[in-house]
Amino acid sequence: MKIAVLGGTGDFGVGLVMRWAGEHEIIIGSRGADRAGKAAEEITRILRDRGVEADIRGMENGDAVEESDLVVLSIPYNSTKTMVEELKGRFNDQIVVSPIVPMNRVGKRYMYTPPAEGSAALLIQKILPPSVRIVSAFHTVSSKAIRDMDNLLMGDVIIAGDDQESKRIVADLVRAIRDLRPLDGGDLKVAAQIEGITPLLLNLAKVNGNVIKCPGIAVVLSCPTEKKIESCHL
Amino acid sequence: MKIAVLGGTGDFGVGLVMRWAGEHEIIIGSRGADRAGKAAEEITRILRDRGVEADIRGMENGDAVEESDLVVLSIPYNSTKTMVEELKGRFNDQIVVSPIVPMNRVGKRYMYTPPAEGSAALLIQKILPPSVRIVSAFHTVSSKAIRDMDNLLMGDVIIAGDDQESKRIVADLVRAIRDLRPLDGGDLKVAAQIEGITPLLLNLAKVNGNVIKCPGIAVVLSCPTEKKIESCHL
Repeated sequence: MKIAVLGGTGDFGVGLVMRWAGEHEIIIGSRGADRAGKAAEEITRILRDRGVEADIRGMENGDAVEESDLVVLSIPYNSTKTMVEELKGRFNDQIVVSPIVPMNRVGKRYMYTPPAEGSAALLIQKILPPSVRIVSAFHTVSSKAIRDMDNLLMGDVIIAGDDQESKRIVADLVRAIRDLRPLDGGDLKVAAQIEGITPLLLNLAKVNGNVIKCPGIAVVLSCPTEKKIESCHL
Repeated sequence: MKIAVLGGTGDFGVGLVMRWAGEHEIIIGSRGADRAGKAAEEITRILRDRGVEADIRGMENGDAVEESDLVVLSIPYNSTKTMVEELKGRFNDQIVVSPIVPMNRVGKRYMYTPPAEGSAALLIQKILPPSVRIVSAFHTVSSKAIRDMDNLLMGDVIIAGDDQESKRIVADLVRAIRDLRPLDGGDLKVAAQIEGITPLLLNLAKVNGNVIKCPGIAVVLSCPTEKKIESCHL
């Protein structure tokens, strides 16, 4: 699969690229092709030192979209609307993965501040052509934790989307990252519920100080007690 | 401590009563003192069969509030406003614990539908006298799971509130239930983030079918990988 990671030069994007390269053809997307190209070279070198032969290229965002089967929008919420509108003509029938969380710091706490559409995922769906399949995922994976290849990322990734096949593909990308477990959250209308967990986790990290550094979440089964969810149907 | 559980005849209320009785003096509150009294007798008998000597009484809701140091509102969201307004004159400086989740089934999914105040907890705070300390907790504990004493309730209980001392008391009540871990979520303004997890868990249970029956959540530490949160500062 050809995977474009837009914002692929930031911590979260680099983390995804490093963990998927070797298995997939990766295109790092950035505003400037130069910057993307340099990041691609650097990550390729780092992975080679770890014994992984990777196929990573860098491209300007629009070219990266056109080249790919699946696009991860590893971009800040504040630039999402503008950027997706600028790029919409370059999309065809890609799977678009949104880990985007609309949130703001209000006083000493983080609050979920979704757009009128209800969530970042629904905003993106409204802008892009209907042939594009939006999947909401990876919101609770810490950028700091995924960036460091030596970290094991425990926890669940809850996936929302209207198309089962693309959710299945994203579930496999979750499984490709050691110790992350995919869970099907339902259709795209529930994306707000998933996006909203991130400010909660950031507040928990802040309030509980050093105890929690890069929190994630896990859905646990509380009855019967012997079983834990091992996998979902995706 | 004298703990009143309003709605103490429902599954969730009965579960709390059974797990705290023996350590605390419990008052089951209900609309009718008779019904509350019968529930108290029945639970006392069940606990005696398990070797636990409990001090449980049943009272009409208002009397239960006046008699207690801490009041758990184990009531449906739909009756919250009316009931809290009816009872507000009976409160003095109790700690009030709200596990209440405003949610509705919209089509095939559960959605979080908070009041204009932002959350059930903030609605209750607005109605009750300022001397009452509101603590938001226990939203993600399954009624079905807590009702059966043989179930181990794995997972975290995230606690929100403006008064540290009452959060600490509620954290101890969480620890009293085997294998639940308390976490400090922050002040009462973040209660919506905690209440909102319940519809997500119900959707997960529904979408993933038999795999998840009574889900709870656990906050996991993803970096460094060796450590898990053992406790919070509460």
